[in-house]
Amino acid sequence: MSAYKTLESRWHQISNIGHALSILSWDEATMMPSGGGEARAKASAGLRFIRHEMIIQKDTNDLISKAKEQKDLNDWEISNLKLIEKNWRRAQCIPSDLVRRSSEASSRCEQAWRKQRAENNWKEHLPLLEEVLKTQLEAAKILSQNLELDPYDALLDQYEAGLKSSEIDVLFGELRSQLPSILDAAILKQSDFKIQEPKIMISPQKQETLGRHLMKLFLFDFEHGRLDVSHHPFCGGVPDDVRLTTRYDEKNFISAVMGVLHETGHARYEQNLPKAWRDQPVGDALGMSVHESQSLFIEMQICRSREFLKFLRPLLLKFFDLDSKDPTWSEENLYHLYNKIERGYIRVDADELTYPLHILLRYEIERDLIQGKLKLKDLPELWNEKMQSYLGLSTQENFKDGCMQDIHWPYGLFGYFPCYTLGAMMAAQWAEAIKEAIPNLSSQIESGSFEDLQNWLRKNIHEKGSLFSAPELIQQVTGKKLSSGSFIQHLKTRYL
Amino acid sequence: MSAYKTLESRWHQISNIGHALSILSWDEATMMPSGGGEARAKASAGLRFIRHEMIIQKDTNDLISKAKEQKDLNDWEISNLKLIEKNWRRAQCIPSDLVRRSSEASSRCEQAWRKQRAENNWKEHLPLLEEVLKTQLEAAKILSQNLELDPYDALLDQYEAGLKSSEIDVLFGELRSQLPSILDAAILKQSDFKIQEPKIMISPQKQETLGRHLMKLFLFDFEHGRLDVSHHPFCGGVPDDVRLTTRYDEKNFISAVMGVLHETGHARYEQNLPKAWRDQPVGDALGMSVHESQSLFIEMQICRSREFLKFLRPLLLKFFDLDSKDPTWSEENLYHLYNKIERGYIRVDADELTYPLHILLRYEIERDLIQGKLKLKDLPELWNEKMQSYLGLSTQENFKDGCMQDIHWPYGLFGYFPCYTLGAMMAAQWAEAIKEAIPNLSSQIESGSFEDLQNWLRKNIHEKGSLFSAPELIQQVTGKKLSSGSFIQHLKTRYL
Repeated sequence: MSAYKTLESRWHQISNIGHALSILSWDEATMMPSGGGEARAKASAGLRFIRHEMIIQKDTNDLISKAKEQKDLNDWEISNLKLIEKNWRRAQCIPSDLVRRSSEASSRCEQAWRKQRAENNWKEHLPLLEEVLKTQLEAAKILSQNLELDPYDALLDQYEAGLKSSEIDVLFGELRSQLPSILDAAILKQSDFKIQEPKIMISPQKQETLGRHLMKLFLFDFEHGRLDVSHHPFCGGVPDDVRLTTRYDEKNFISAVMGVLHETGHARYEQNLPKAWRDQPVGDALGMSVHESQSLFIEMQICRSREFLKFLRPLLLKFFDLDSKDPTWSEENLYHLYNKIERGYIRVDADELTYPLHILLRYEIERDLIQGKLKLKDLPELWNEKMQSYLGLSTQENFKDGCMQDIHWPYGLFGYFPCYTLGAMMAAQWAEAIKEAIPNLSSQIESGSFEDLQNWLRKNIHEKGSLFSAPELIQQVTGKKLSSGSFIQHLKTRYL
Repeated sequence: MSAYKTLESRWHQISNIGHALSILSWDEATMMPSGGGEARAKASAGLRFIRHEMIIQKDTNDLISKAKEQKDLNDWEISNLKLIEKNWRRAQCIPSDLVRRSSEASSRCEQAWRKQRAENNWKEHLPLLEEVLKTQLEAAKILSQNLELDPYDALLDQYEAGLKSSEIDVLFGELRSQLPSILDAAILKQSDFKIQEPKIMISPQKQETLGRHLMKLFLFDFEHGRLDVSHHPFCGGVPDDVRLTTRYDEKNFISAVMGVLHETGHARYEQNLPKAWRDQPVGDALGMSVHESQSLFIEMQICRSREFLKFLRPLLLKFFDLDSKDPTWSEENLYHLYNKIERGYIRVDADELTYPLHILLRYEIERDLIQGKLKLKDLPELWNEKMQSYLGLSTQENFKDGCMQDIHWPYGLFGYFPCYTLGAMMAAQWAEAIKEAIPNLSSQIESGSFEDLQNWLRKNIHEKGSLFSAPELIQQVTGKKLSSGSFIQHLKTRYL
């Protein structure tokens, strides 16, 4: 067997651990009884340890060198080999023991966080989070030396390959300078229309039925996936068995409907990944920014548009038995309900316009933490300052709606947050490109026909897997580099 | 680190794969969409392959030899080392590739079987089952040579350590000679009482509510376990997170109530295994016979007794809103409903008296298959002959209620069936022992108090894990060897 084929077969083997970890992680969030947490944390850490040992086997480097000399590789194989090398290069410098300690610290902190957040208990949370940060700093330092990257960039790289904070600074700089004034203007404009808030209770069952109906319209394949409930919505599982979750609030159906559509955007990406490259790195989704661009494209660009809401309105009336004459359900009011702007504490509840401000804040803080410029104990104070400055809100002593609100840091995900807003920027660029490719897209959306749209996404993005880098893909599909321009233009068009 | 400690740590590592396989297997039966089957089959086979490679690492044998020389091991460690050696000895002679092929063949056959059984499609099932049998024969041959065992005994040994078919022949011989006449007499006696069959529909929700109530009475710990629905009831998961399943038939609540209690017997065993020995072979449950003895003890010895049914009756009336004056719900009729004897086609629906006949038939057939005395294509004919002889029923052309009814062979479980009836024999011996230890057990059961009973099981059986062999444990707890005597006596007392 050629060196390349040996590597392919080894990575196929390694992917079995990934399959297990994905399903176990879904199970933990949706099914596992709380008492199973400790054993699960150990098992997951153990599986990560085993995977790590498999990646860094003695002969891997040698096989990679030999495979790079092979002249018989096609484009997919060449990209796959690059990704295998990248996997290996990141893993080989990290001691297996650190992989296990890091996984265990994260599991412990995240499981405690669920309770501690509810209790606003920063004091007891701090030492657990310190442990997580310690393992992350350890990894960042080692990676930084071995990959010759800034420590924070070394972490960013695992969620979005090659991304550097110097690039983020440029992209986010434009947002930082323009968003505050757009936000002011949007809130002012919004006050022209008096929004009627829904006062109706809709059962989770009814919300789920509509959610499933919408998922099918967006071609979600229930033979290869499920919809369940979890505290924090996510899209997990494996490409042939995509597990997405949502949560239902009886008092507010707006949120769950959009939540399901958002996760469906992620799910369709997974389900459309190239079948011929299952279980190889090149068959995986590109980084987290592209993944987020898929969910935000569906949710923000498509489903909060006037066209889609026009299509959605009769479905809401039908599935939820609403009175069509009630002004709450008028086209105009629904549009405003689904596009309401509000300065709030919570990132996951934030609208499209304030969301990037939540991300800016987190990006600046986590970069400082990893670069050693900020101590964890000073986090709540800095959070409060930045919230005051970006959104005019105080989080003094309010940890649960402040620096304890997200699962990311307790779970050890430092360097992940910027992907959300990079994804929003990409989504705006996809929207421009697809409108050129499908001139009557608006009327298709209004009539509830999403096949052309899904085909475009599949052909241009999903089926490409990780054949290209994200910058290459963006250039190919949109004809330009990633910038904040299309996103800012979209925000202005929608809200001003 | 001492050789023993190195082995312990390695087996701890290996147990992480076992954790994943257990949860994935539960997921497959309860949650997985059908389209996920192929990827899951590959992933599970891959995980088994990895586990196998971990067990047979080059230095394992050497470590075992060194550990055996250590003088500082306590009783638990000595037993653990023996089990580790046994694990290794069985694994080291099997090629890793056979582990994967065998797992893949079983998954493929079992997934197809679900559909093929429903369609009575023996013709298309046969080649898939041939593949499974082929890998089993291959393994049996290798094990037979390496362990110096008869090929069938080599397979038996993986479900019940050290068990030989020569012993089974003796134990089953007594059943074969006595059961037919007991069965005739029991059916005759049964006709003295005219059983009123329930004609009421009870919703799955109500059945589940009662099931959960009963599970709690038997101290099932819902912080460390779940109850779900699956096509075939089973008890899976891991000791800290026990996943049991049942199925509900609206027309027949009798079956689900007992099904839940049966699986609770398994579950309590798992939940009570020694915490200090989690993830080591000595901390695992003993073989499948002892496991089955736990579920059969709870279901057959305790819960189908007059005392328990007296306690259950008011619960049935309350949870299912039954009319207490309806003679269907009289104490006497309920007792007969729960202890009805009937010659039937289906093992899993069989009563306590005919069940061993279903096992005898399967035991004789699978032994012949593994010993090469029977070809798979002749299986339906032999099945039919034996059904005629043991139960007076014909399965001619009725494959789905004949040789295709069980999941075991499609799943590659040859050598497992005898454990059910050995478990029934053990359960009868436990029952004799516990009645001596707790003289007022009957009145405790009648008043719904199961704590003494559970404590006795925990202290005498569950907490022992695999410290002793099954024959040792039986001798210790019951003061005698395993025989069919107590079981036959129990059957006579209950049915004649």
